[in-house]
Amino acid sequence: MDFITDALAQGRRTVNEYEAKQLLAGRGVPVCKEYLVSAVDEAVSAAEKIGFPVVLKASGSGFFHKTDAGGVALNLNRAEDVKREGGRLLKIHGAEALLVQEMVGGDRELMCGLIRDPHYGPCVMFGLGGIMTEVFEDVVFHLAPLTLADAQQMIGEIRHRKLLEPFRGQAAVDTDEIARVLMTLSEIGLERREIRSIDINPLKIRRDGKPIAVDALIGVNEDLNKEGPAEVETAAKKEKKHSLERFFAPESVAVIGASATPGKAGHTVVKNILANDYRGELYLVNPKGGEILGLPAASSIEDLPDGIDLAIVMTPADTAVQVVSDCAAKGIGYFVLAAGGFSEVDESGESLQKELADVIARTGVRTIGPNTAGHTSTPHHFTSGFFPLGKIPRGYISYITQTGNFATHTMRYIATAEHFGVARVIGLGNKIDIDETEALEYMGNDPETKAIFLYLENIKRPRRFIETARRVSRMKPVFMLKGGSTREGSQAAMTHTAAMASDERITDGLISQARITRLYDYSHLVLAAKALAMMPLPRGNRVGFLAPSGAMLVVLSDICAGRWGLAVGELEEKTLKRLQEISPAYIKMRNPVDIWPSALLHGIETSYREAIEALMNDRNIDAVVPILMLTEDVGVPPLDFLVELARKYPDKPLYVSSSGEKKYMDGAKEFLEPRGVPTFPLIEEPFEVLSILNRCRMNMERQ
Amino acid sequence: MDFITDALAQGRRTVNEYEAKQLLAGRGVPVCKEYLVSAVDEAVSAAEKIGFPVVLKASGSGFFHKTDAGGVALNLNRAEDVKREGGRLLKIHGAEALLVQEMVGGDRELMCGLIRDPHYGPCVMFGLGGIMTEVFEDVVFHLAPLTLADAQQMIGEIRHRKLLEPFRGQAAVDTDEIARVLMTLSEIGLERREIRSIDINPLKIRRDGKPIAVDALIGVNEDLNKEGPAEVETAAKKEKKHSLERFFAPESVAVIGASATPGKAGHTVVKNILANDYRGELYLVNPKGGEILGLPAASSIEDLPDGIDLAIVMTPADTAVQVVSDCAAKGIGYFVLAAGGFSEVDESGESLQKELADVIARTGVRTIGPNTAGHTSTPHHFTSGFFPLGKIPRGYISYITQTGNFATHTMRYIATAEHFGVARVIGLGNKIDIDETEALEYMGNDPETKAIFLYLENIKRPRRFIETARRVSRMKPVFMLKGGSTREGSQAAMTHTAAMASDERITDGLISQARITRLYDYSHLVLAAKALAMMPLPRGNRVGFLAPSGAMLVVLSDICAGRWGLAVGELEEKTLKRLQEISPAYIKMRNPVDIWPSALLHGIETSYREAIEALMNDRNIDAVVPILMLTEDVGVPPLDFLVELARKYPDKPLYVSSSGEKKYMDGAKEFLEPRGVPTFPLIEEPFEVLSILNRCRMNMERQ
Repeated sequence: MDFITDALAQGRRTVNEYEAKQLLAGRGVPVCKEYLVSAVDEAVSAAEKIGFPVVLKASGSGFFHKTDAGGVALNLNRAEDVKREGGRLLKIHGAEALLVQEMVGGDRELMCGLIRDPHYGPCVMFGLGGIMTEVFEDVVFHLAPLTLADAQQMIGEIRHRKLLEPFRGQAAVDTDEIARVLMTLSEIGLERREIRSIDINPLKIRRDGKPIAVDALIGVNEDLNKEGPAEVETAAKKEKKHSLERFFAPESVAVIGASATPGKAGHTVVKNILANDYRGELYLVNPKGGEILGLPAASSIEDLPDGIDLAIVMTPADTAVQVVSDCAAKGIGYFVLAAGGFSEVDESGESLQKELADVIARTGVRTIGPNTAGHTSTPHHFTSGFFPLGKIPRGYISYITQTGNFATHTMRYIATAEHFGVARVIGLGNKIDIDETEALEYMGNDPETKAIFLYLENIKRPRRFIETARRVSRMKPVFMLKGGSTREGSQAAMTHTAAMASDERITDGLISQARITRLYDYSHLVLAAKALAMMPLPRGNRVGFLAPSGAMLVVLSDICAGRWGLAVGELEEKTLKRLQEISPAYIKMRNPVDIWPSALLHGIETSYREAIEALMNDRNIDAVVPILMLTEDVGVPPLDFLVELARKYPDKPLYVSSSGEKKYMDGAKEFLEPRGVPTFPLIEEPFEVLSILNRCRMNMERQ
Repeated sequence: MDFITDALAQGRRTVNEYEAKQLLAGRGVPVCKEYLVSAVDEAVSAAEKIGFPVVLKASGSGFFHKTDAGGVALNLNRAEDVKREGGRLLKIHGAEALLVQEMVGGDRELMCGLIRDPHYGPCVMFGLGGIMTEVFEDVVFHLAPLTLADAQQMIGEIRHRKLLEPFRGQAAVDTDEIARVLMTLSEIGLERREIRSIDINPLKIRRDGKPIAVDALIGVNEDLNKEGPAEVETAAKKEKKHSLERFFAPESVAVIGASATPGKAGHTVVKNILANDYRGELYLVNPKGGEILGLPAASSIEDLPDGIDLAIVMTPADTAVQVVSDCAAKGIGYFVLAAGGFSEVDESGESLQKELADVIARTGVRTIGPNTAGHTSTPHHFTSGFFPLGKIPRGYISYITQTGNFATHTMRYIATAEHFGVARVIGLGNKIDIDETEALEYMGNDPETKAIFLYLENIKRPRRFIETARRVSRMKPVFMLKGGSTREGSQAAMTHTAAMASDERITDGLISQARITRLYDYSHLVLAAKALAMMPLPRGNRVGFLAPSGAMLVVLSDICAGRWGLAVGELEEKTLKRLQEISPAYIKMRNPVDIWPSALLHGIETSYREAIEALMNDRNIDAVVPILMLTEDVGVPPLDFLVELARKYPDKPLYVSSSGEKKYMDGAKEFLEPRGVPTFPLIEEPFEVLSILNRCRMNMERQ
């Protein structure tokens, strides 16, 4: 790889096309036959060696936009053409040599690339190439390293994947070969920090489907120390040996800064602990001593007994270093630091956080926060939240969040409206120590957690996160809403790859690699969780549904197929027969099920029950959604039959929605959800949630 | 246009490339310089006339896929190249002549086309062209005729419109010139029914931005009578002179088939009329006579007085012809036909409907239905609905629907949950007479109607509909949900244009032409209506919002920009100043507004009120969305201040959403909505609705 060293030594920022392809060819990337020559005669003999037709390109340092400068002659068929064009090209300002290349046939132009992102480190790109790259913006990024399966997944994730199929008499694209190119770029990215970016563009596809690099450009780093912190972590970060178990099942807890004043956070946290029936030992510290909520308060940390598991620190930011030191001296190894005022606010907060990091490192304690709204562990009847929460309902959903909402109003919303409970909740705050990766690892192994939802604004150790998430995603559904995807790729970047590298695209790739199911709406953190809390993951994308209205059947069918990747499954014969039996003859029953004529004939309860049961028994259907019609005058049936059906067929999701009068729609929710049947207020929602869970299933099934 | 006549006479289904371009050139479409020659020598002199470089193409009847067959030689620079390649091409099987063309520079390939759709008639297409047409599927259809503004609009609607901007040293595309090409295709489509389709593909864009047709193909009709019913309507359909006023303001009404039996439709309809305090004369007809709901029933139609305005016919399908005849004989001119069992069920129903159409034509009566769930006119205290509805709340929203839902459960939902009322509602049923176009015309002129929502599964007279909708859309917001967009373009079609012509794409174009705002979710028929019932249309896309959580601010900002075309507006200096005054110093206030720190300082009511008022006064903000946090422990403020702010600033929409405890969230809805402030249960919804209304505003402002 001396071209790189040479370029750096010469103070160049790029390696030219010829050098770049030599380098890539040396790593097994298929490149077009070509020779770099300095005179027209040499060009002719090169062309003869290659075989006509050929391409001539002007070459020279600083010659990037050859095509725009008229520096390319395509499809030269004979020696005299090479002479004539060669002469012309060498006269172009800046041209120093001629590159003679085979003329590669085939109509398809793709692109492979590598970029070294300041945060995410080396990332590999695949997408549509050629001169329209920035128009189509159809590219996918993944973080290095890539497995073969990753690379193949990436290739299949471009929007215009149709282009990979047989095309106008040309063979299907050899995607295995492209996958190898991507893996090679990934390896180069990990090995050679002095490479800033690589463009292989176009990667042409020959008529036989084989890819071949026709142009390439490599950017090198002027300053090796400026970029690439992200990959350091993999090697350097020594995993701390403590598990998070002590946070989620502490046998003794001290609240530092407990308060006797109602409304104060230091008071509410104690109230929450009591409201959740914490069964371990609870110690309070307040300089004034006395009694708080019936418990004695020590007046200083020194007065605490030795060997308490966990301290919840409610005192202000500027006391944190001292408090952690003092507690560590008393043998406390685990901390929840509530105070804000650290790196999230200003420079002085940042230096405070630096000091805090030092004391954590020195003492070896483990810390959640600072600036966390606390954590919750319902199996252990415990919370460190300091927002008035009351008794938090226990369940099997766990949240890892870079926001306090799941220790505050969103938790209240879940508890009061959505009829499901949580297992573990952790507010990461500033992530001075415990981060999403460690939390995910813990919840992955946690028998109390059946599904994991993350809200993150950044990912501290992207590669470890991917590794962990892939492992966890094999066992449990994992979802993530990523906030703050605003950084755009720099359009002024020298390479196409760099120009395309937006935070949004890299995040998309990272989440795909991690086998995590991406959410886009805040509400889905709650609605998809409810669906999974009450029902199994659907086994496929084939939905069966019933509605009391043709318009609803039509509109929802359109959306299922066109927007959500759901199939309105074709029913088995026996199902069709059963549906027809309960329907007036003039309706030809099928999926979706036009249920109202049957309801008028047999009553709402009978018709819905029979039709739902038929769909539940149909092997072509993976989930069933009845839309009820609930109005007083047509009669609101008792809804026990839905609960019974859900219990009788526990392996198939049943989601309920409704239309009609509000009090009955509200009543259906209040009746069904505590009995384990989820409901959704808008008729589109059950389908949207199914589509999310279907994506999740596919992610979990991936290699 | 003799090429067409010739082709038809010869039994050909296409006009070849040369002929097609001659024909287009004759209509002013810019085409490349070219000559059709039969020998190599002539090709050379043609090339010399054109000027090198040139393109040679083999030509012959039945020679469509020239490129695939190797029948094209590009970029020939000299006479000898033309000779050599010409000789080769003439040897290809099927080649009869040579087409010598100028070699057109420029990298961009677009496409213009025409197709004659069996239902929609001649439709013009614009999109990305070249060999990748079917891969990118980036095309837009509009129905002929096109105005210049339509054509320009179409051009701007392709996804990759970036390609029209200056590109790699090449000028911006001359879209005016392309608009003229599209208008020419539109004219040809209207004039020449014997043309089935036209492809201009590629329409290359020269480096100076000028479009030029480089290849073209015209398909001709074997059977002139088989296709193209849709355009007949424009000329042939004589508008009936009666207005719909009599339906919506009848002075006297007869219910034919009124019933004394509770639960029967013929009973419920009478109950509904009474419940809505209808003030005109009401006559009932039942063979048994007697009394129904306290009113006397005539035992036959003959017993009715002459000159009743409107008959609601509740008797079965097979009585319809007789009933309409008898009523017409008594001078009744307007009918609502409730019975189903016509063309929507089977062939015998279809022939019944045919008979009914005959009697309608013969008597000249006007008819809603058959198979309608009725219509409603709250300003006239009247409904013909026969689903138990009670008193229908009066308001300014009107619905035109090809479903009964807005006379049944969806109306109950609106009445019981969403706190707004309706003006006119019409269920179109089978549209034997009154259709969406006439209904829209009426509601457009109706002073009681402020916004119109349509649900349609097909459009009976597409051109008249577009014409009417454009007129109405200038005055009032018009929205449409189209159900059943499933017909795909035929991939086996001979032309690209035909291959791309799916029902979904043509519908999209039609709705755009009509200046109607397309909805995709059923729920938006209600939620967008609620927003407009309570608030004005936003004047722009700049939203200002407040949330009690950073995560919500971040996620919603992402979605506003990335998904919904909303801008999170930059605030004026004075607004920033005011926000900063009410906030702790460590927060730098901006839009979106991080309100919770301020709420902790000044209380929820004060902080929200001050911040909302500041945004209401900001000229850079077009709509304001506060997300409240409503939980008992932090305190739920009285919400009068929101009502006061809404009244104080009536020109700017204020939408409220909330998070927290369900009973307070429900309470906020129950308090605010009857006072004119709309609320939305999921925090994403107000933004989605704003984005819909913003599209609406843009449609209304279009030329």
